[in-house]
Amino acid sequence: MNAPAHPESLRREVPAALIDALLARFGDRASVAQAVRDHHGRDESPYPTMAPDAVVFAESTDDVVAVAKLCNEHHVPLIPFGAGSSLEGNFLAIEGGVSLDVSRMNAIVAIHPEDLTATVQAGVTRKQLNSEIRDTGLFFPIDPGADASLGGMAATRASGTNAVRYGTMRENVVALTVVTADGRVIRTTRRARKSSAGYDLTRLFVGSEGTLGIITEVTVRLYPQPEAVSAAVCNFNTVDDAVKSVIEAIQMGVPLARVELLDAMGVKAVNAYSKISLRETPILLFEFHGSPASVAEQAATVQEITKENGGMDFEWASQAEDRNRLWTARHNTYFATLQLRPGARSCTTDVCVPISRLAECIRETGADLATAGFISSIIGHVGDGNFHVQMLINPDDPAEWDLAESINRKLVTRALAMDGTCTGEHGVGLHKMQFMLDEHGEDGLGLMRQLKHTLDPNNIMNPGKIFSWA
Amino acid sequence: MNAPAHPESLRREVPAALIDALLARFGDRASVAQAVRDHHGRDESPYPTMAPDAVVFAESTDDVVAVAKLCNEHHVPLIPFGAGSSLEGNFLAIEGGVSLDVSRMNAIVAIHPEDLTATVQAGVTRKQLNSEIRDTGLFFPIDPGADASLGGMAATRASGTNAVRYGTMRENVVALTVVTADGRVIRTTRRARKSSAGYDLTRLFVGSEGTLGIITEVTVRLYPQPEAVSAAVCNFNTVDDAVKSVIEAIQMGVPLARVELLDAMGVKAVNAYSKISLRETPILLFEFHGSPASVAEQAATVQEITKENGGMDFEWASQAEDRNRLWTARHNTYFATLQLRPGARSCTTDVCVPISRLAECIRETGADLATAGFISSIIGHVGDGNFHVQMLINPDDPAEWDLAESINRKLVTRALAMDGTCTGEHGVGLHKMQFMLDEHGEDGLGLMRQLKHTLDPNNIMNPGKIFSWA
Repeated sequence: MNAPAHPESLRREVPAALIDALLARFGDRASVAQAVRDHHGRDESPYPTMAPDAVVFAESTDDVVAVAKLCNEHHVPLIPFGAGSSLEGNFLAIEGGVSLDVSRMNAIVAIHPEDLTATVQAGVTRKQLNSEIRDTGLFFPIDPGADASLGGMAATRASGTNAVRYGTMRENVVALTVVTADGRVIRTTRRARKSSAGYDLTRLFVGSEGTLGIITEVTVRLYPQPEAVSAAVCNFNTVDDAVKSVIEAIQMGVPLARVELLDAMGVKAVNAYSKISLRETPILLFEFHGSPASVAEQAATVQEITKENGGMDFEWASQAEDRNRLWTARHNTYFATLQLRPGARSCTTDVCVPISRLAECIRETGADLATAGFISSIIGHVGDGNFHVQMLINPDDPAEWDLAESINRKLVTRALAMDGTCTGEHGVGLHKMQFMLDEHGEDGLGLMRQLKHTLDPNNIMNPGKIFSWA
Repeated sequence: MNAPAHPESLRREVPAALIDALLARFGDRASVAQAVRDHHGRDESPYPTMAPDAVVFAESTDDVVAVAKLCNEHHVPLIPFGAGSSLEGNFLAIEGGVSLDVSRMNAIVAIHPEDLTATVQAGVTRKQLNSEIRDTGLFFPIDPGADASLGGMAATRASGTNAVRYGTMRENVVALTVVTADGRVIRTTRRARKSSAGYDLTRLFVGSEGTLGIITEVTVRLYPQPEAVSAAVCNFNTVDDAVKSVIEAIQMGVPLARVELLDAMGVKAVNAYSKISLRETPILLFEFHGSPASVAEQAATVQEITKENGGMDFEWASQAEDRNRLWTARHNTYFATLQLRPGARSCTTDVCVPISRLAECIRETGADLATAGFISSIIGHVGDGNFHVQMLINPDDPAEWDLAESINRKLVTRALAMDGTCTGEHGVGLHKMQFMLDEHGEDGLGLMRQLKHTLDPNNIMNPGKIFSWA
């Protein structure tokens, strides 16, 4: 897992004066209890726990300002914590410090249905937001697997299955409120749909993983709930045929809302887990949004395209029940795959390549996996050229870890050679830092480092993540 | 026009050694001829000419690197020049220096139809790009009024009539090649549709108006040419009714490709100029993209909505000829309005507000204009909450200038009070600098200034634009 050999050696000294000041200001909203610290030093990655020295539960932007000022004064790391669902070690306290938990900042600040925007505190989760706005006839489409917080989703530039139609957090964050290392409160922009008034401060923080500032409020775009939704599933002999179908559908202008690829092992896993009986070949799972006539037309066009590419068993699910069965199966892929090897842990990777190279990238990765011997599945947000490999590893066998890591490195190297990226949606965290130089070059990475040094001269904001300080 | 009282006093000294070095390296691709300099010191704004001291015609990124290094060494301003179609004084040489003309950098670098991307040199214009890709079945939708260069459009975060459906340059730039003040060449990201690999360097430069670096290559998103296109026009008694119709259509999920508002004076102008006979009330001009069945359905839905909001004379133009007539009239609004007062110059402003406030903003602005006495029209990219006011001014009457500027200031103040922005798509240039503090606050503007100081410590990149150095 490419974990640092001696993470303990990286921990900074945390002065008692800081801890005392936090306890004095926040009372029982600050904690140094080991269980609380451990909970904030563990994500969904297989990294060992790296606990912060203290945890503060913020309830307001002012709380965050107070903690930032204290940490900055003492040069102590400050790490935001949302829903804890990161996959790449993004918030682990590798240098110790204070974890700032925003999960209690879960208020809906404002909903503007006519403007299709909602402003929420950073700890609001995507499911909470969608539940709160249901009556407006609107929804928020970005759906990473977990019920992540909006602040965390902005910080990692998250996306999910709807990105092919609705974009990622990059496109769907309208504005942010951010607290910088020195305790300034920045409102990145206003609520207009577009603006040419100066630098794009919003996008400076989207994807910065807490290393430039702490997001305390997020304004996002909302969309009308589609009048009609239908789904379809189709089997293919090869991943190539499936990808070719997607490329053709996009080029014909079919406004696919979702299109997900599962390889044969992925299908096998969901069959067993969700008690369904899809043929165990690569499949595409489509979802169409629009008027009833439009989704019918989209499905018909896609059926035609898939047929020409050797698609089999095209099944159209216009009933909510059938559709939910399929999509629930898709959403359970991660856990379904885990069941294929009891006791295993999951090593998950995430690359994104131009879609013209996607089939080739998956094919070559599949060949690597076939020689590895352990169970794995590939699922892809195929309309974006983004896919995940889930490798099931015996956590007690270092050789399996090493092999999984070596496949991961080969995969990223392959993706970069195809003008792709080392992470489509999980973020860099600790796990992908090793690839940042290859991806961005000396000058690109140097520019990122300049930005970091400028905004966070004492290196307190989630230090040791994305890239090294020097 | 809020021009500096003594722009000459701001000019920096340009050492003869620099001019000599430019002439030596670039030969007849460098010029100090007054006519060439004047041409590069004049845009579509009413500002007086502010000529650079020299002009270099770049043909490659290497050329730009060489000029940047020389200018940086001598602390001499360096200003990129594309198609020269800016509206807010964006590239005027207020501190003198070197204009770097990229119009000869007009090569298509790569087209990837399967990936829906094109990479072009910065001097390629939007019409050139669309002409080059026509055979692929794809198109590039961003359409500011002028045939601007892609580099300039990225630098000002431009948009146009298609933004309601396809987004602005913010959403449609995939990657940039940028030369920084010290001559580094940054490739901002790779060609994958999405990435979570570190800071969003692309968006750092989109909208920075040449103040952080010079864009030399642009990779943009392309879209399938719609299978069918139809247009419709509808009259309303009031702007409120028109805006209400747009809000309802968007909330119902109608995927409007374009929706433009013209006020009664705008309609009068296009009637006279384009020899058409629309009723002279506020109108909405719609365009629908999709399959034949889908565009028919969209038009029917919109007709229903407009009818409920007092819309009159709904006319559906599915024939290319009728459609072109309408849209050509729309595209000629600027010149058509100019004809209403021969000899006048045009003072054009550009604000964007949340759409829920748009009708109110236009109504109050209309009241200001009614008392002003000179001829004016309002046209709006109404789906985005963005509109322009065109005021026809006697260029020899300072009182009219002052009045136009005072209306502009009132309008921007109104837009900011509505959580809007001082510019939706023209950029800040010189003209909107006065509003940046109100729009972004001390901390937001301070952060932009930090970024500028970090990337351009000698303040050579298009200095004196967007915000002041200190």
